[in-house]
Formats: sequence, structure tokens, C-alpha cells
Amino acid sequence: MDKDDLRQLLNYVKEGKISIEEAIKKVQIAPFEDLGFVKFDHHRHLRQGFPEVILGLGKTPEQVVEILKLVKDRNHPVLATRCNDEIIEKVSKEIPEAEIHELARCITLYRDKVKIPEGMGKVLVISAGTGDLPVAEEAVLTLQMLGNPVEKLYDVGVAGIHRLFENYEKLLDARVLIVIAGMEGALASVVGGLVDKPVIAVPTSVGYGVSFNGLAALLGMLNSCSAGIGVVNIDNGFGAAFLANSINRIGRNVKK
Amino acid sequence: MDKDDLRQLLNYVKEGKISIEEAIKKVQIAPFEDLGFVKFDHHRHLRQGFPEVILGLGKTPEQVVEILKLVKDRNHPVLATRCNDEIIEKVSKEIPEAEIHELARCITLYRDKVKIPEGMGKVLVISAGTGDLPVAEEAVLTLQMLGNPVEKLYDVGVAGIHRLFENYEKLLDARVLIVIAGMEGALASVVGGLVDKPVIAVPTSVGYGVSFNGLAALLGMLNSCSAGIGVVNIDNGFGAAFLANSINRIGRNVKK
Amino acid sequence: MDKDDLRQLLNYVKEGKISIEEAIKKVQIAPFEDLGFVKFDHHRHLRQGFPEVILGLGKTPEQVVEILKLVKDRNHPVLATRCNDEIIEKVSKEIPEAEIHELARCITLYRDKVKIPEGMGKVLVISAGTGDLPVAEEAVLTLQMLGNPVEKLYDVGVAGIHRLFENYEKLLDARVLIVIAGMEGALASVVGGLVDKPVIAVPTSVGYGVSFNGLAALLGMLNSCSAGIGVVNIDNGFGAAFLANSINRIGRNVKK
Amino acid sequence: MDKDDLRQLLNYVKEGKISIEEAIKKVQIAPFEDLGFVKFDHHRHLRQGFPEVILGLGKTPEQVVEILKLVKDRNHPVLATRCNDEIIEKVSKEIPEAEIHELARCITLYRDKVKIPEGMGKVLVISAGTGDLPVAEEAVLTLQMLGNPVEKLYDVGVAGIHRLFENYEKLLDARVLIVIAGMEGALASVVGGLVDKPVIAVPTSVGYGVSFNGLAALLGMLNSCSAGIGVVNIDNGFGAAFLANSINRIGRNVKK
Amino acid sequence: MDKDDLRQLLNYVKEGKISIEEAIKKVQIAPFEDLGFVKFDHHRHLRQGFPEVILGLGKTPEQVVEILKLVKDRNHPVLATRCNDEIIEKVSKEIPEAEIHELARCITLYRDKVKIPEGMGKVLVISAGTGDLPVAEEAVLTLQMLGNPVEKLYDVGVAGIHRLFENYEKLLDARVLIVIAGMEGALASVVGGLVDKPVIAVPTSVGYGVSFNGLAALLGMLNSCSAGIGVVNIDNGFGAAFLANSINRIGRNVKK
Amino acid sequence: MDKDDLRQLLNYVKEGKISIEEAIKKVQIAPFEDLGFVKFDHHRHLRQGFPEVILGLGKTPEQVVEILKLVKDRNHPVLATRCNDEIIEKVSKEIPEAEIHELARCITLYRDKVKIPEGMGKVLVISAGTGDLPVAEEAVLTLQMLGNPVEKLYDVGVAGIHRLFENYEKLLDARVLIVIAGMEGALASVVGGLVDKPVIAVPTSVGYGVSFNGLAALLGMLNSCSAGIGVVNIDNGFGAAFLANSINRIGRNVKK
Amino acid sequence: MDKDDLRQLLNYVKEGKISIEEAIKKVQIAPFEDLGFVKFDHHRHLRQGFPEVILGLGKTPEQVVEILKLVKDRNHPVLATRCNDEIIEKVSKEIPEAEIHELARCITLYRDKVKIPEGMGKVLVISAGTGDLPVAEEAVLTLQMLGNPVEKLYDVGVAGIHRLFENYEKLLDARVLIVIAGMEGALASVVGGLVDKPVIAVPTSVGYGVSFNGLAALLGMLNSCSAGIGVVNIDNGFGAAFLANSINRIGRNVKK
Amino acid sequence: MDKDDLRQLLNYVKEGKISIEEAIKKVQIAPFEDLGFVKFDHHRHLRQGFPEVILGLGKTPEQVVEILKLVKDRNHPVLATRCNDEIIEKVSKEIPEAEIHELARCITLYRDKVKIPEGMGKVLVISAGTGDLPVAEEAVLTLQMLGNPVEKLYDVGVAGIHRLFENYEKLLDARVLIVIAGMEGALASVVGGLVDKPVIAVPTSVGYGVSFNGLAALLGMLNSCSAGIGVVNIDNGFGAAFLANSINRIGRNVKK
Repeated sequence: MDKDDLRQLLNYVKEGKISIEEAIKKVQIAPFEDLGFVKFDHHRHLRQGFPEVILGLGKTPEQVVEILKLVKDRNHPVLATRCNDEIIEKVSKEIPEAEIHELARCITLYRDKVKIPEGMGKVLVISAGTGDLPVAEEAVLTLQMLGNPVEKLYDVGVAGIHRLFENYEKLLDARVLIVIAGMEGALASVVGGLVDKPVIAVPTSVGYGVSFNGLAALLGMLNSCSAGIGVVNIDNGFGAAFLANSINRIGRNVKK
Repeated sequence: MDKDDLRQLLNYVKEGKISIEEAIKKVQIAPFEDLGFVKFDHHRHLRQGFPEVILGLGKTPEQVVEILKLVKDRNHPVLATRCNDEIIEKVSKEIPEAEIHELARCITLYRDKVKIPEGMGKVLVISAGTGDLPVAEEAVLTLQMLGNPVEKLYDVGVAGIHRLFENYEKLLDARVLIVIAGMEGALASVVGGLVDKPVIAVPTSVGYGVSFNGLAALLGMLNSCSAGIGVVNIDNGFGAAFLANSINRIGRNVKK
Repeated sequence: MDKDDLRQLLNYVKEGKISIEEAIKKVQIAPFEDLGFVKFDHHRHLRQGFPEVILGLGKTPEQVVEILKLVKDRNHPVLATRCNDEIIEKVSKEIPEAEIHELARCITLYRDKVKIPEGMGKVLVISAGTGDLPVAEEAVLTLQMLGNPVEKLYDVGVAGIHRLFENYEKLLDARVLIVIAGMEGALASVVGGLVDKPVIAVPTSVGYGVSFNGLAALLGMLNSCSAGIGVVNIDNGFGAAFLANSINRIGRNVKK
Repeated sequence: MDKDDLRQLLNYVKEGKISIEEAIKKVQIAPFEDLGFVKFDHHRHLRQGFPEVILGLGKTPEQVVEILKLVKDRNHPVLATRCNDEIIEKVSKEIPEAEIHELARCITLYRDKVKIPEGMGKVLVISAGTGDLPVAEEAVLTLQMLGNPVEKLYDVGVAGIHRLFENYEKLLDARVLIVIAGMEGALASVVGGLVDKPVIAVPTSVGYGVSFNGLAALLGMLNSCSAGIGVVNIDNGFGAAFLANSINRIGRNVKK
Repeated sequence: MDKDDLRQLLNYVKEGKISIEEAIKKVQIAPFEDLGFVKFDHHRHLRQGFPEVILGLGKTPEQVVEILKLVKDRNHPVLATRCNDEIIEKVSKEIPEAEIHELARCITLYRDKVKIPEGMGKVLVISAGTGDLPVAEEAVLTLQMLGNPVEKLYDVGVAGIHRLFENYEKLLDARVLIVIAGMEGALASVVGGLVDKPVIAVPTSVGYGVSFNGLAALLGMLNSCSAGIGVVNIDNGFGAAFLANSINRIGRNVKK
Repeated sequence: MDKDDLRQLLNYVKEGKISIEEAIKKVQIAPFEDLGFVKFDHHRHLRQGFPEVILGLGKTPEQVVEILKLVKDRNHPVLATRCNDEIIEKVSKEIPEAEIHELARCITLYRDKVKIPEGMGKVLVISAGTGDLPVAEEAVLTLQMLGNPVEKLYDVGVAGIHRLFENYEKLLDARVLIVIAGMEGALASVVGGLVDKPVIAVPTSVGYGVSFNGLAALLGMLNSCSAGIGVVNIDNGFGAAFLANSINRIGRNVKK
Repeated sequence: MDKDDLRQLLNYVKEGKISIEEAIKKVQIAPFEDLGFVKFDHHRHLRQGFPEVILGLGKTPEQVVEILKLVKDRNHPVLATRCNDEIIEKVSKEIPEAEIHELARCITLYRDKVKIPEGMGKVLVISAGTGDLPVAEEAVLTLQMLGNPVEKLYDVGVAGIHRLFENYEKLLDARVLIVIAGMEGALASVVGGLVDKPVIAVPTSVGYGVSFNGLAALLGMLNSCSAGIGVVNIDNGFGAAFLANSINRIGRNVKK
Repeated sequence: MDKDDLRQLLNYVKEGKISIEEAIKKVQIAPFEDLGFVKFDHHRHLRQGFPEVILGLGKTPEQVVEILKLVKDRNHPVLATRCNDEIIEKVSKEIPEAEIHELARCITLYRDKVKIPEGMGKVLVISAGTGDLPVAEEAVLTLQMLGNPVEKLYDVGVAGIHRLFENYEKLLDARVLIVIAGMEGALASVVGGLVDKPVIAVPTSVGYGVSFNGLAALLGMLNSCSAGIGVVNIDNGFGAAFLANSINRIGRNVKK
């Protein structure tokens, strides 16, 4: 039951076409979403310029192709994340217009239709080592598909901390920062100590031994002595970008 | 070496009062901060209206009193977090003008001097159960001391999820949301699924058995099926507020 | 907005006292619960003979006394669980009519008003060692307060498994079984292998070393080679009883 | 020694064909089961309409085929769970009448011979995401093979909680609920807060990073703030169904 | 039903005083133990010279005193382990004849009545550091109360491995060895590499940081590169002694 | 330097063929083993009828074949454990006289040369489920190669505990018991409660979810409420057999 | 901005070619490294005889080949660690002059150009078992490429501790010791107790069950009762060698 | 048996005062140490200027006082670490000449007798926050008692990384660096990236929530992206100092 249905129902009540008790029952069992909750419809924001997002993880190549074909016709941006080799191969073959982003393990459609809305600031994506690149690229691509200007600062791990300082101006220039690091994840603390902007930290599974597939980096980031760092799950470049976007949009929504 | 020192040095160079090689050496060993990095001076932003923050954890009552007395004369807001009974007792006795916030385990000075800067949005602090209140209050107090308008929505754990829905308008009304929950921490996922604003999740150590002092809630929040939730350390109400403030300030800094 | 409010609103619509658009908005923001969801009101079932339950854990003695005084006047059964020494002492002094159950760490009021509803079967509470008794007694008391006939079978740990077999008839006689054990928790598997009734297992924190405060027992129960055992949190006698009660009530609700 | 053997022995004693001391010894060493313990014979309930269950996990394709051929002749329902691709391929080829349930990783025989006994209520199987489907389908199939009417409610994860509410009537309609979720497993808490029926929660290994292959969901469910949820091992759809069946049968066994 | 009862029952059958069907039923529900299983009676071996053992852990001083008074009259050896200060104080006052073993946290009665049975070999108790002494002494006392000749070799941790070698003859002289060590527990591997006798390893909670209260030592012992070491729970000196005793008794039971 | 070398050296000293100082130096740097320590020579006991043991884990097929060829000529029993498919295939081809034990993942040579020494008792190997068979067979084979009479009792998991009781006499008949179980490992506790002989428990990696590859079973066994169970590493059938053998040999070594 | 740039800038200042304010700004944003920090340039020490090091882990064969080709022309030593089969195969084919070190999983170039600087002492690399060899060889190769004289002492695990003692002189002869062991890692403690030189311990992932891929060895080494052992990550032979080299170079740098 | 004993024995052999077989036996059982192993005598190096070290952890005040009194008469330096309040109080009273180091929880005697040997370099002790001071001071005191010149650099955590850079010269000036940090322990990585000297990292238990009492810092340090950092146990300031001393002494021992 959406607003129109409700309007009609109330009209029927007004016109006496339906008894009040019957109307009560209809309202009671009406699906919640239909009652007008803004975000209850996850698909709605798609119509507002957001991309459709498909999580490839745990889906068969056939399933991804099927979904892509379905949404393709809507003619607006689509992003598929965590696509393995099988998915990428299948999609390449069956949907030639799909763009493959191999490093990011992502697939996009209609990327050129994404517009950067007015009021968006720059999001800086910082990564520590080459092993962190797939996660960083997933974040970058997600940010771009969501309409954010993105700056990259890669390979600035704390073992060679001067590379970070050499790019200090980029840090000052960004509205939101995403820091991506594996191993001990110390980069998040260092960056967090250098800026007073929102910092989102993404631990990666890069490392071996007691990196425990990213757990050490995660713990490091959660324990950061630099206050106010928001942490997401290991390797979750998409989630960090999603949060950065919702932060960045504040600038857009602020009434001037 | 600050800018003035550098200016003088260059003047000396220009005037030939100092050899170039000697100048090179002086620049090389000059402290980094002095070269003008904005945030390297943590104390600077205090002068700009931020409170002085003292972490009570691991400090003796004597140490806290001493620091409070030192900063008291600066005549601007002070916030001490994680103050145990001994600290609170000692401070109450020795600094009568200090405000004690027992539930939040915090102490403040000059709270009335805090001004809410123009452009700040509302931060909504949501908590699940009564056990989460100390963490929630620490977040609220920190937000207020940092100049944020705060709304509270307490005791809306998912076991009685209708209480959350009854306050749906509050969710829509906020610019940033902080969700505080112990046990399984499911509230973060539910809230994250209802709004498309920045959500910061704080796991608390409320629970017993396999809550593992907040670890279960932390894992739940990091694994949230609602995309884009930033998580901080267990019981870290201060950190969540600090991050929320840096997000909220984007609204303030956006050029109109 | 409850049914009556909705009825009145619809009447107003019918009578033209309110515009349809205004009515739509009112329905949209009406609290969910008011729309008639059965369990959204947690307090409702109290009126139906269920006890009021207060979790003592994390509450101050003052808070517990205050709540007890509030609900006392309703004149129906009250159960407070996880009451520490301070709570018990305070309640003993301030509410003399309260019954103290020291072993179970519980307090009750109006226990004599509990009636066992028709159709309830017997719940058998089995425990392994003396250290498990507080949890077992919490379960027993909860079951009784919820209106279940309870049988006890204590101190039948698998190190002396003959004691369990000596009471085999009790196992056959019960509708639901709660098995409470610490250390390795093997009792749950043994009992689960002897009956084909619902078995609820409660690991307890009894043990030392690698019992890890009940984790070993929990893992043992979740890995049980006896199929179909439902496990609750460590030391959660209350939760097991709550589940047993909801299972037992099936017998009551089955239409004859 | 079964009842008949014992009867004969006693007859011999009565008739003096055997000395009393000899009879004592024979009774002492008689296998326990033979003494008449109801459930000691796991195969007995098969004759009463229960399916034979084969755990495919850790068995070779040859072993599964062999067992299936053995029990096939008994002409009553058979369920094999956790069958990998090799098992499925081998069985398909060698036992053409076997039904393959690919998503559930199960194989059945004589499924049409299963009858739903009188007095069984509906079991509702709720799952959060598409990744949880194999576990959900294993539960559904097990329930059906054990003679339970089953209703499904899939893809209602808390990120889009409105889908759950849209199906609120299904929740009210069921006698027992099985909630299947990975990642943070919050769905169990939400469902547990909406109904007062037995809820069985199954954590799944769906997720990545700190989902730790289902551990996060498991912890979330065990720590649920909704009282009275029984939890089973990760991905254990069969165990949940087995427990649900034993709960459901209470309705059947209640004397009318 | 013990042997005598069974004999009488069979007599009744023989004499026709009871019907055969009635006798069958009586035998079916007779307690298992009564049917003559050797170890089902845990108390029986007490009568054979074994001490009564009381686990003080988790018992109140009152409970321990009560049990001690009960068993005191049987006039045979009693051992109470894991007695805290409160228990020791209470017992000292109320049972003056009790021997207090402060280091071992144990209490004994009638220790002088213990006889070393013929055929017992020497058990060597080896410990690494002074912190391990309470566990070592618990093992020694248990061994002695169970009738084993004991040799001690203390303070021979691998940091000063020469002390172990200086006592190499003691190692050769023992029938069973118990190795007690905290921290990294390496002593078990070293001893296991020097002898080809049964070695029982007891990890202790001695250590700090990542000793994790004995977990590191436990893991070390379970992973020992010296084959054939049996490990018990952390700090479980009693369990190691119990196992050593059952091994040692093989020598006693071997028919000569 | 063995005894003979030392004897010669001393003779030289006696005869003045070597100076005393030179002799001192030679003794100082002489390898320890040579000084006569019984077990320092691991190969010695091979000459006494023990098999040569080769751990296949982590070795290449080539390495195993090479070692087998080397020791083959010594003409006494050889046991290779933890041999994967590649090793087995390679050995089958290159050493046709080698016996392959597929289930146990072992290879033997000259098994018929093993003699059971006088005085050895029976070792009973008990296992819970079919998944535990490889570990059980590894233990059996090791025991046999070390000269122990072995009895097997398989598939007696506690879910069908009657099968264990039906074989109660076997338990009474053994000198040492090895209990092998995965999942929750409860079988060890049950067996430990039924006998007063040395029990060695082997957790196996059988299970899924929170079995954590055998950790749950390990914890269960270490926490056993049945006193005196010695535990070895997960899946370590060889280690358990090695320990059982060293226990069993006590019977052999006892002077009659 | 390097020293020369700064010199020129100062000259410009002196000569009035640039205003002082402009110079201040240039100095402020100059990259840190350029200001002369010794180690900020990781590549510099290469020019001083250190090898270029490439971490193969997580790189594609193509990437490794590309980097090798790039650095090959510099004509000084190169070391690539953690190269898997694909990398090794690719490099073998494309860079024939590359030396493959299969056991160490390493590749080198220009190894013959490495010179052992004056003042370097011997580094002794000790390993416990054959499974530890790849890590040991990685350490050895790294040490050699860094210009250290290396001695090896392999296969001296504590199960046969006499082999260690037989080589006691080697221990006395070294300046720094690296101890490499898996399973329980006890070798580090034993060695640490025998020498008073710097000992670096490397846990390896050799083992099974509760070795937890090297965690048990790591914990053992960190908890070592022998004081002053520095531990590195699991399997990190490179890191241990790197630290040993920086220790060894002290001897080289000491002014004579 | 020391060298003199052996000489005498050989003399006896030579003179025929003892039979060769008897001599063989005497050599076989002679304590290992006596054969001349340098470090087997831990007390020897004390005579060479090293302090006696007493670990207070786990000792009673009486025990510490007793040991201190014993060693006091030897008139050379003594260091007691990990002394709690009770120990400190007791020692203060009974041994007035003892120096109490409250922050470091240490006690010393004859500190003024420590001489810094020629050839020792500076050891720099760096710590992150005020909570790390006790560990840092324990390291400093240990270093000093072992004869090392020490420089301190405290409160330079990465949240305010400029303080570290301001002291860059101190880093360049040291021979060995000890980095002490809790929380995420990132300081070790940053320092390790700035110098090419031996860095020893000490994680501290400073932190809360998922710092897990220092585990997060430990993992961070072990996973450091800066190669060649040696890590010790949590809070083990003594161990780090001990290792630093053994490294520093290389400079002393290098032949000039």
C-alpha cells in the first residue's frame, strides 16, 4: 500500500464505499514500507542517481549475469563488487558493454552516466602497500559511482613515512579520508594524528603469520591512539566508500 | 623553528650574517612542527574553541587534579573522561567549581562557555539498554563540549524494536547518528538499514558469557549487513563523538 | 495511534473533518505498535499472568528497589534475576515481603499467585555438578514463575553416569529438558542421545584453566553429536527457562 | 538380551534349568539396550515413519552410495545431508530414482512417502540473505522429511527490515520459527523480539573478514537481547530442523 | 537393585512368588549400578584404600567442613584440594586434627593411614620454577595419598637446563614422570626427549602477557616435538597425579 | 665418543700415551650422547625391536622414498605416518614390498617381524564416529608396530551410548584405553567415568562450524569431569599410541 | 628539495632573486626527505652495498619479472623472497641469469657481488626440524646477501637435545643467533639458556592441530623463561636476518 | 665434577688407583655443567659485574626480603623487578638501604657500584604515552644496572608524531632503540622506518576494549611493515633491556 493506495482507501472511506472497520484492517496489515518510510525502499535512491549495487561474493556467474541483464535496461549506473575470475569471465562474454575493473574485482555499467552532484568535497583514498590496491580500487570505484571526486595516495606505508609527508597537502585538501592498510595498520593512526577530518580506516588481509588475515590491522585501527577513526570490516573498501559518501553528502545537503 | 625564526634566518642569509651551509644545517634539524603544519600542534585548536580533553584512564587522582588546575586558568572548556570514583572524589574536594557527571564518569569545567558554531546539525545518540548509558552519556557530553546540538534516543534495543520506530522522525531529523549497544549489537544494523546518513557504532561491554566484554557486539557491528557503518573501540563513546563532530563540522565548513 | 485513534481518524475523514492528505501524513508517522502488533507491547503479557522480569545485572540496589516498589502495587508475580549481595541486602531491608532465593541469586514477589495453566507438561532441569546449582535454580525459579511444573535432577555429571541412568524414568516423563553443565558440558550430548524431546543446553562458567569461563562447555554443546540441541549463552538459566516455557506452551495452545 | 531372552531366562530359573547365580551373571553382562530402553534403538523410530538420515560430510561417494543402496530396500524415506559435488554426481549415476536437491546439498529417496502427522503446526523458516539459502533449504527439506508443514520467508535481512514486517502475519501464523542468518546475525534478535514462540537460530558462515566463518553471527545470536532463543552450530540447518520437529511434535503428542 | 536383590527376585521367580512379566519390568528399571558394574560405585574404591577426594573449588567453607566431618568418621584417608584461605581458616578452627598443606592449597586427614601397595614404582614430579610449586605440591600430595612413592625435582626450568642434567639419574629411576611448567612449558619437551617412560605434562598459569594464564604452556605441551606426552588442564596437579597413579598401578596389577 | 672410545682414552691415559690435559679437553667436547645417556640415541631402541618411524607430514614423496630405501636394508620394522596421496602413490610404485594402509594414511615395512613382547596388556582403541577412523587406525597401526595387542571398539559415540555399554567387558579387559572423538569429544569423559585405568584422549578435527577443526573436542577433553585423562594434540593418533605403549611396557618391565 | 635545491634557494634569497616570504613557503611544503633525513631514502643504502629486496608475496609473476628487469641494470645484488612456483617458473624462463633458491623460495641476482664488510661477526642459524628449512634458508640467504658470514646448525630440535650440545662450540662461536622452530618452539628457550648473546627467535608454521600455524611456537618464544629473546612474525626468516644484520653491523661501526 | 676433579680422576686412572670401568661410570654421571660449559653457571657472570636479578612477580614480600638479605652481603648490584606494593613496603621497612623505584616497580641495591664498561653505546628508550612509563622505567633501570648509557624519549605517540620528529637526532645518536607502546603499538613501525639500527619493541597492556591487555599492540609490532624489529612479551621492559644490553655489548667485545 503506497500513498496513492492510502489516498484511495481514505477516499473510499470518505465516500462510504468501505466500512471503517474494514479500512482499519487494511491499514493494519499494509506493508510497512508502503506507509512512506523514506529509506525502506532501497531501490528508490537508485532512481535518484545512485548506482544499483550487486555483491558478487557468494553468487554464481550465472546469477550475476542474470541480475546485470535485469538492471541493464533501467539505463542507470550499476556496480558489481567482489567478482571472482569466473564471474568476470562470464560477464565479459555475455555482456560486452560491461566494464571490467580487474584490480578492484568489480564490474560496472553506465559509469559515464554518473554525475558528481554539486557540493561534494574530495575524498582522499590512502593505501599503505601494493597488496592493498584491490581494496583501495574497490573504494575508489564505489566512490566514483556514488558521485564523489576522488584523489588517490598509494604506497605510503609507515615504513617509508616520508612519502606520506611529501603529500601532506593532499591530506589538507580532502573533506573525508579513507586509510587502507594491512599488516599492523599503523598508517591509520599516523594519518589520524595529522588531520582533523573524518578518517575511515579499512584493515586489509594483507600480511602473513599473526596478521591473521587482517585481524591485527583491524585491532590496530580500533585501538588507534588518534581519536575519532571509524573502522569497517577487513577488506571492506565498498563499506568505507559508502560511509565516506554519506559523510560527503552532508556538504551537499547543507542549506546555504 | 617557526615561521618567524625561518624569516629571520633567511634575513640573516640575505644579509650575509650566516653562511649558506650553516643555514642548510639549521633548516635540516629544525623541528617539523615549526615548519607550519596545521595540526601538529594539538593545543592550537583549543584556542579555537575546542575543549581541552583529559583521559582519566590510568591517571592518578593527583595527576588529574594537577592537570585540571593547570588548564583551569586558561579559562576555556575542559573535559575529563573515564574518571573513576577516586578521581571524582579528589576533584570534587579540590576543585569545587568542577562539574561532576557521574553516569558518564566525566568531569567538566567551563561547560557554559561552549558555543554551538553556526552550521552544525543535530547528532542523535541512540542506545540499546540501561547498561549502555555511561557510554552514551560520555558521547553526549563530548559532543556538547565540542559544540554539537545533541538529541538522545535511549533504551530502544531491538528486543522491543517498536520503540525505535516510534521515534522514526528523530532518525530522519539528525545529520549524524551514534548507535551504542552491547550484547549482540544488532541495533546498529537496524538503524543502519533505516537511514542513509553517517552512522557510527559503539559496541559496549554490556553483557555476560560470550559477549566477551563487548567483542560480540563489536563483531556484529563490523559485520553489519547495513553498508557504511563506522565502528569504534568497545565503550569508546568519546571516540564516536569525536568522529561525529568532525563529520558534523563539514556542514559548518562548506562554503555557502 | 491505536485502533480507536485510527477509527476516529477514519471517522473524521468520512465526516470531512480532516483532509485526506492530512490523514495520510498522520497514518505515516503513527507509531508502529499502535497499529496493533501483538507482541510489540512487552508489558501486555504481564497482564495475562506472566511475571514482570527484572534483570538485576548492572543495576544498582537502589534501582532494583525502586522498580520493585513500582511493580509491587500491580499485585502480580515479579521475578528479579542476577541479584548480587548488595541488591539482596538492600531489598531484604526495604521490601520485607520479597522472597530471597540466595542460591539462584533471585528475588520474587507474589510467587503464590502464579498458576500453572492447563496443558503444561513437566520441564526437567538436569545439572551436572554442585557448581552448576545457581544456574539450575535460576532456571527452575523462572520456569515456576512462568507457570511450568518442574522436576529437578541434579548432580548427574557424566563422570558418574550411572546416576543419570538411575533416573531414566524422569527423562521419559518430561516434555522439555534443560541440561546445565560446566567444564566439558558432555552431559548435554549424553542426555540428547537418550531422549527424542526438545533439549535446551546451558553451559556454565564452572571450571578452570581451559574451561575459559564456560566457553569449552558452550563449544561442546554446540558441537554435540546428538542432533537437535538448542544452546543458550553461558550461565543463562533464565533464557533456557524462557525458551522451555515457550515450547511447553505449545501443548497448552494446541486446539483439542 | 531382549525382553524375550529375559523372559526365557526367567522361565529357565523358574523351571530350575539354570542356577540363580548363573542367571545373575547373565543379567549383569546383558547389553544395556536389550533391557528395553526406549530410545537406545536409534533405528526404531525409523520404523515409525522417521526418515533414515545420512550425514554426507566426511563420507566418500562410494560410502554414500553403498548406504543408500542398503536402506533403499526398506522402502521408507531417506535423507542424505551435506553431499558435495562428487557424492551428488556418483549418486545421480548409480541411483537414478534418488532426488537431488542441489541448493540444499541434499539427496532424498521416497520423499513422497512422508506423511504429515496430525497435530503438527507450521514451522516458519526465515533467512536473511541469498548466501543463507543452502542452510535454509537443508532445514526446509529436513523438516519436510520429518513430517512438518513448512513456510518459507527468505531474504528478509535487517538491512531492509520492512520486508520482515510486510510478512508479519507469517510470523504470527507459525508454531516454531527457525531464523537463519550470517554476517552479524541480527535477524534472530529482531524476530525474537516480535514473537513469543520458540525461536531457533542458525548462524551461517556467510560473510568475510571478521565474520570468522559464522562465529560473529553465532556470538550475536547467543548474546541476543531477545530472551529465549535456542542456537545451534554454524550452518547446522539440519540440527535446527531436528529441534523444531521435536518441539512441533509436542502439539501432536498432547492428549486431547 | 544389587546382586542380593536380584538373587531374591530370581528366587521369587523360581518359587512362583512373582510373575515373570513383573520380574521383567523390575529388571528393566533397576538402576544400572546395582547390576554390578565395577566402577559405577565411585565410593567403593575408597574402601579399598583410596582416599576420599573433595574438590574445594567453588565450595563454601561451611560445605567443606560439613563434608570433612561426614567422612572423618569413616576413619580412612581424605584429601581436599583447591582450598582457599577461607576454607583453610574455617577447617583449621573446626577440625583441629586436619593437616593443612598451605603451599599445595590442600587439606588431609588420616594421611598416616595411607600404605604404599606392593609393586608401585617411583613417580618423579619435575617443576620448572618457584611459581609452579603449588601445582607441583598438589600433585605430590595426591600421589602420596593414592599410595605412590614420590621423588621431587624442582626448579629445573630450561633457562638453566644444566640443573636438569645434573639430576639425570632421577629421571632414569622413575616409572612415571610428571612435568609441571608455566610460561612456554618447554621443560616437558626436553624431559620427553630424555626418557622413554610415560610423561604427563601439567601447564601452569605462571607467567604474564601472552602466557594467557597458562594457555601458551598448554599449547607448547600439546605441540611437543617429543612424542607421547599426555597433557592435562592448566594447573591440574591433581589430575596428573590421578593419571600417574592409574599408570603406576599397572605394575601392581601385573600378574607375576 | 662412546664407552669404548672412553675406555680406550682412559687406557691411553693409563699407559701415558696421551697427556692428562689433552684427555680433559677430549672429554669436554665429546658429544653428550656418547657419554652413555640411554635415550640420547634415538636409533638404539630400533635395534631392540622398535620400528623406525617416519613422519610423512611435510615431506616430499621423493624424501619418503629415499628414507624408506635407506632403512629397508636394516631389515626391521618401519612405519611411515601421515602419508598423503602423492607419497602413497610414489611409494607403491617404487617400493612394491611396502604395505599401504590407506585409511590410516600409513605405510609399513616388515610388519610381520614385529613380536609382541611378554608382559604386554591389551590396548583398547575406542572411536566415536566414522570420521574418526583414520586417526584410530593410525593409533592401531602404531600400537601394533610397537608390539601391543590391540582391541578396537569403533563407532560408539555418545549419541548412541548404548553401543558403548554393550561392550562394557572390553573396557574392563584392557590395560590402557585410547579414546578418539571429534565434535564435542564427550566420549572421553564417559569412558573416563567408567574405568579406573589410564585413558588417553585424542581429539579429532571431525566436525564443522565451532568444532574449530578439533579445538572444541580438545577443550572438552582437557576439561573432562572424569579425573586423570591424558590428552594429546588434535588428530595425533601416533602420539597417543606412543604414550599407550610406554604405559603398557610398565607391565613388561615390572620385575616379577 | 634536496640539499642542493636548498642551497640554491638560499643563494637566491641571498642574492635577492626571491623574496623571503616566497622562500618560507617553499621550505614549508618541501618534501621531508629532501631535507636530509638519513634513512628516509630507502633506496640510498642500496647504493652502499645493500641488496634491493623484493617481497614476492602477493605479487604476480609478471610484476616480479618486471621489477627484476628494472633493477637488473643497476648491476648490484637483488633478493626476491617468498616466490611461489609460478613466480619461480616465470623468472627462470625470462631472466636466465637469475639464481633460483628453491628451498628458500627465493631468487637472487648478482649474489657474487656481495662483499662481507670488515668487522662482521658470524651469525648462527639454528633450526629444529626439516619442516623449518625453508624459513632457515630464507634467513641464511638474506644474511648472506646483506654481507654476513653465516653458520648453519640444522635439525637440532629438543626431542634430541644431544645434537644441540654436540655443537655447543658453534653456539659459543657466533655473534648473533637466529633460532627457527615450529611446533612448541622450545628450542629458543633452550638456546637462550645456553648463551648470553643476542638471540632472535622465528616461530614457523610447522605443525598441525593446536600448533595453529605457528601461533603456539610464537607464544612459546614470547613467554620464554630465558630472558632477552627478540621474536619476529611466524615464518619471517627475512625479518630475523634483517635484525641480525643490523645487530651484527654494530661490530662494524664501532670505532676502533 | 669440574676440570680439577676430572684431572684428579685421570691421574688416579694413570696411577692405577681406580679401575677404568669405575672411571667410565664416574664420567658418565658427572653433572654436565662441571664439564666446563661457559654459561651453565648463571651466577658466574654476576661476579663479572652483572647485577643479581630477582623477579618479584609471584613472590611473597617475605621471600623477596629473604633473597635480598642473602645477596646483599655479596656487595654487588642487585635489581628486583615487578615488585608490588606489599613487597615495596616490606623491603622499605626491613632493608633501609634499598632504593625504591616506585614508577618502575623495582628495587635496587648498590646501584652506585655499576660501572659503564668501555665500548658501550647509547640505548634510546622511546615510549608512546604516560601509561607506558612503568614499563619504560623498568627497561631504563635494567639497562643502567647492566651498565648501559641510556637516553629517554617519552610521550611521543604517533597521534602527535611531530614530537618524535623533533627528536630525530636522538634516534640517530643511539646504538640500540627500545620502543614501548600500548594501544595499537604503531610507534614501533614508525621508528623502525626511520632508523637502520636494532629496534626492540615492547607492547604494553595500556588500552581498553580490543586492546586485549596488550595483544593488539603485540600483533601490530609483530606485523610491522618495517623490517627487522624484535618483539618481546607484553610489558616486558626487563626482557627488552636484557636483549638491548646483549646487543650493545657486541660493541664492547669487538676486537679493536
